[in-house]
Amino acid sequence: MINVVKIGGNVIDNPPALEAFLRDFARLEGKKILIHGGGKEATRMSESMGIKANMIDGRRVTDRATLDIVTMVYAGLINKRIVAILQSLGCNAVGLTGVDGNVIPATRRPAKPIDYGFVGDIDPAKVNDKFIASLLEEGAVPVFCAICHDRQGTLLNCNADTIASSVALGASRIGETRLTYCFEKPGVMTDVDDEGSIIPLITPASFEELKEQGVVSAGMIPKLQNALKSAREGVKEVRICRAEDLLDESKGTKIISQ
Amino acid sequence: MINVVKIGGNVIDNPPALEAFLRDFARLEGKKILIHGGGKEATRMSESMGIKANMIDGRRVTDRATLDIVTMVYAGLINKRIVAILQSLGCNAVGLTGVDGNVIPATRRPAKPIDYGFVGDIDPAKVNDKFIASLLEEGAVPVFCAICHDRQGTLLNCNADTIASSVALGASRIGETRLTYCFEKPGVMTDVDDEGSIIPLITPASFEELKEQGVVSAGMIPKLQNALKSAREGVKEVRICRAEDLLDESKGTKIISQ
Repeated sequence: MINVVKIGGNVIDNPPALEAFLRDFARLEGKKILIHGGGKEATRMSESMGIKANMIDGRRVTDRATLDIVTMVYAGLINKRIVAILQSLGCNAVGLTGVDGNVIPATRRPAKPIDYGFVGDIDPAKVNDKFIASLLEEGAVPVFCAICHDRQGTLLNCNADTIASSVALGASRIGETRLTYCFEKPGVMTDVDDEGSIIPLITPASFEELKEQGVVSAGMIPKLQNALKSAREGVKEVRICRAEDLLDESKGTKIISQ
Repeated sequence: MINVVKIGGNVIDNPPALEAFLRDFARLEGKKILIHGGGKEATRMSESMGIKANMIDGRRVTDRATLDIVTMVYAGLINKRIVAILQSLGCNAVGLTGVDGNVIPATRRPAKPIDYGFVGDIDPAKVNDKFIASLLEEGAVPVFCAICHDRQGTLLNCNADTIASSVALGASRIGETRLTYCFEKPGVMTDVDDEGSIIPLITPASFEELKEQGVVSAGMIPKLQNALKSAREGVKEVRICRAEDLLDESKGTKIISQ
């Protein structure tokens, strides 16, 4: 079983929580891959340099200055910090972007209707599973941030959840793959204030119902769409859980394709 | 033959020169490895963030804030820019630090007599040649910046010339290796203002003479020491030349061990 794990920004912003999570990740047996988000460090960095976030409809635009900052913070600072901690735990991490070894080619998102700048979309079929397979065979543990490229020399900022599902689909062409999204909540909940309201299982049909009833929060919808797509297209197990529950498979929300 | 090439800061600071150099590098046949320095981008970044360089005897101290900046700029911005350009040229570059795959473990430099902060020294015998060999076998082109780690979770800023000679020594355990230091001068010169004064060949004996006569500039001495050490310990060919002369082996200064 290949474990593909995504860790989100809130954990990355909290050094003791990150270290505890990485200890658990290092204990996962067998082949494994980590994908990490960005956290608030890029925003802090922009602010300290006097670069203002450029937002359209509440979404950040990746202009040239922002692209430089996210490349520095995600591919440099956060990725290498995580790799150094994993190495200190005896886990043979190799930090990568989608550019390295052309593992994850992307396509720049069209400028119409809204120009989000240097933002890329990914076709999971193009994930270079051969390179991933050879790293896993060597006993290496790839650690990806969400920086990709257009193969013409331009870096692109991508969505880390999408990277996770794309890499998991690439890995599923190598062997049975389990995808776990770790974040700050214990799973998908019907009531965000009640930790007892976790939905243990989501299917495509129940997702549609939850969406119609307005039960799933706006932020969860793309995450669940990524999860359902992964399950439908070949990832054996998909789970959304709290970072602390990585090693306890009974916790969180499982997503299945039927 | 494995080509190990070091490219220095002045070329990195000049985008058209960098792109021209990378085009030549991409044309080098066979197995190859690139090591890049940092350029002035880290200094500019520090200044824009109001972080003052902390210098002792004209040498920069890598305090925590500086370590974060060099990690971001070298491992993030510059490394990924170079990898994206090489990928666009059909060269299957994989950007790495010494941390990734524990390729280059380092030791933090003792705080006495002078505490340079998070600075590391390297033992070439510890370079992970197996990981390098497996990447080269896959047809990948490793691209290293000079960030390493102490294996305890702490990143360390290292000297890129030393990384180049250490990686070349590691590569020489895999196969015959040629090390080329590319910089802004046409080679080692007896008169820095006269490009006709290039010294075509340096041996350990002639290096001692040149040093005694004060002919070699202070900045060239550590570079030549690295070059001589590489030649003595197993690198078949060592050359110092201008970036533009990478593909013309008749140019520059050759360094041999006897």
